[in-house]
Amino acid sequence: MRRIFLKVAYDGTDFHGWQLQPGVRTVEGELNRALSELTKEEITVIGASRTDTGVHALGNVAVFDSESTIPPNRFSYAVNTLLPDDVKVVFSKEVSADWHPRKNACRKTYEYRIYTGEFDDPLKRRNSWHVPYRLDADKMQKAAQYLVGEHDFVSFCSVHTQAESTVRTIYSIDVIEEKREGPDEDSGEKTAGGGNDGTATGSDFIIRICGNGFLYNMVRIIAGSLAETGSGKQSPEWMEEVLKSRDRTKGGPTAPPQGLLLKQIVYDA
Amino acid sequence: MRRIFLKVAYDGTDFHGWQLQPGVRTVEGELNRALSELTKEEITVIGASRTDTGVHALGNVAVFDSESTIPPNRFSYAVNTLLPDDVKVVFSKEVSADWHPRKNACRKTYEYRIYTGEFDDPLKRRNSWHVPYRLDADKMQKAAQYLVGEHDFVSFCSVHTQAESTVRTIYSIDVIEEKREGPDEDSGEKTAGGGNDGTATGSDFIIRICGNGFLYNMVRIIAGSLAETGSGKQSPEWMEEVLKSRDRTKGGPTAPPQGLLLKQIVYDA
Repeated sequence: MRRIFLKVAYDGTDFHGWQLQPGVRTVEGELNRALSELTKEEITVIGASRTDTGVHALGNVAVFDSESTIPPNRFSYAVNTLLPDDVKVVFSKEVSADWHPRKNACRKTYEYRIYTGEFDDPLKRRNSWHVPYRLDADKMQKAAQYLVGEHDFVSFCSVHTQAESTVRTIYSIDVIEEKREGPDEDSGEKTAGGGNDGTATGSDFIIRICGNGFLYNMVRIIAGSLAETGSGKQSPEWMEEVLKSRDRTKGGPTAPPQGLLLKQIVYDA
Repeated sequence: MRRIFLKVAYDGTDFHGWQLQPGVRTVEGELNRALSELTKEEITVIGASRTDTGVHALGNVAVFDSESTIPPNRFSYAVNTLLPDDVKVVFSKEVSADWHPRKNACRKTYEYRIYTGEFDDPLKRRNSWHVPYRLDADKMQKAAQYLVGEHDFVSFCSVHTQAESTVRTIYSIDVIEEKREGPDEDSGEKTAGGGNDGTATGSDFIIRICGNGFLYNMVRIIAGSLAETGSGKQSPEWMEEVLKSRDRTKGGPTAPPQGLLLKQIVYDA
């Protein structure tokens, strides 16, 4: 029996989250089905992060045990032919029989995407949150700094948590802005009939956050709260007040799931 | 009666292209339906670019005539509430009664997206072409330069064209590469169990092409041909031979539709 480690990427849009549930399509369900078909065994994966409905991943981690003689580093290639196109295994290897993705110390990096500008962008709707007002990245970065370090993040945790302790360590939060060009900045042409041709000005934001673990909805609540500091609705210092209040109702809204991406999980060993 | 100009964005994945056809979902069909519902008139739009099944747009252009008293610049806001989430009007204004989106001189900018790396990326599958081998951006740029200027592009035109003349002018082609980081370059952490943690190295490419008009499948054939120069299968100079041969069979494959995006159309007047 060997324990196989998988790195899994998925577009969360058409899944009801990672965790297996009867009657709905889940990432775990698809992996179990495909691996069972591949090995002719009854495979149940154990995942590192139970992402919610609509949340995406580039680097979730899972393990499973198998008697199969498929070389561990070939599992990825083999199982992908049996997986649908919205979930793929991008790496596989063998780990020790007792290696557990939720019991080993790690750093998790999430990214939350927001785009501003007046109109909904059909090409961003599946992986980004549309915020139709201006956001100030500097203010958001200033606010984010209050969250770096070891803190009780209960203010940023949905009340449905089953976690015993709500203390976590955030290693870094980076607020990255990429401005989208305005009308004809790149072509220099005059526009049809003069005046604005409607090129939507706005920015694409990525909130990149790395920590040793995250509470239920923590990144999305941080994103929703940072957006309030970015819009000017709240001051950057308010973020510290929210943290210290230990009260979920003091913070911002839970940002929608489609903007969230589990980027990678790096284990200490 | 007023002629209203629309700038239209859409995710082409779930459309059977722009052009109205019975029995399938089209961008034109959705616009006609929504505008007719909005104005209580029978609206038929005239589009600038009849994009194919699966092709996306950020800036296609269309016009329609209406007696409606809705202010021209408010049509965008009004019709979006009646459109599905994969097509939106991002700008609207009035134009002269005889202004025609295909009869006025313009510059069209398309972008074609390619990503390299070993595995299919579920998060890129809808808007990028996966090429699982390395591509050399410098060679691709060198090859692309042969196409700049006024040429007979019949070698880059699907034989199904209805165009009278196959001469067009390409103003510029830019091959832009964005490398994706390799294992832990940004975190400095050692990886689980040592060795490669499977972070897929590879690059995201954008081929940005601006011209006064494009033949049927021209950008996709150029993209497929440039990929062959990027992989080393063909030399950059081969691109010039293909152009001069005036023979479609001499060129590269037609790259798949999902990588293509109509970025913007800028009219001279």
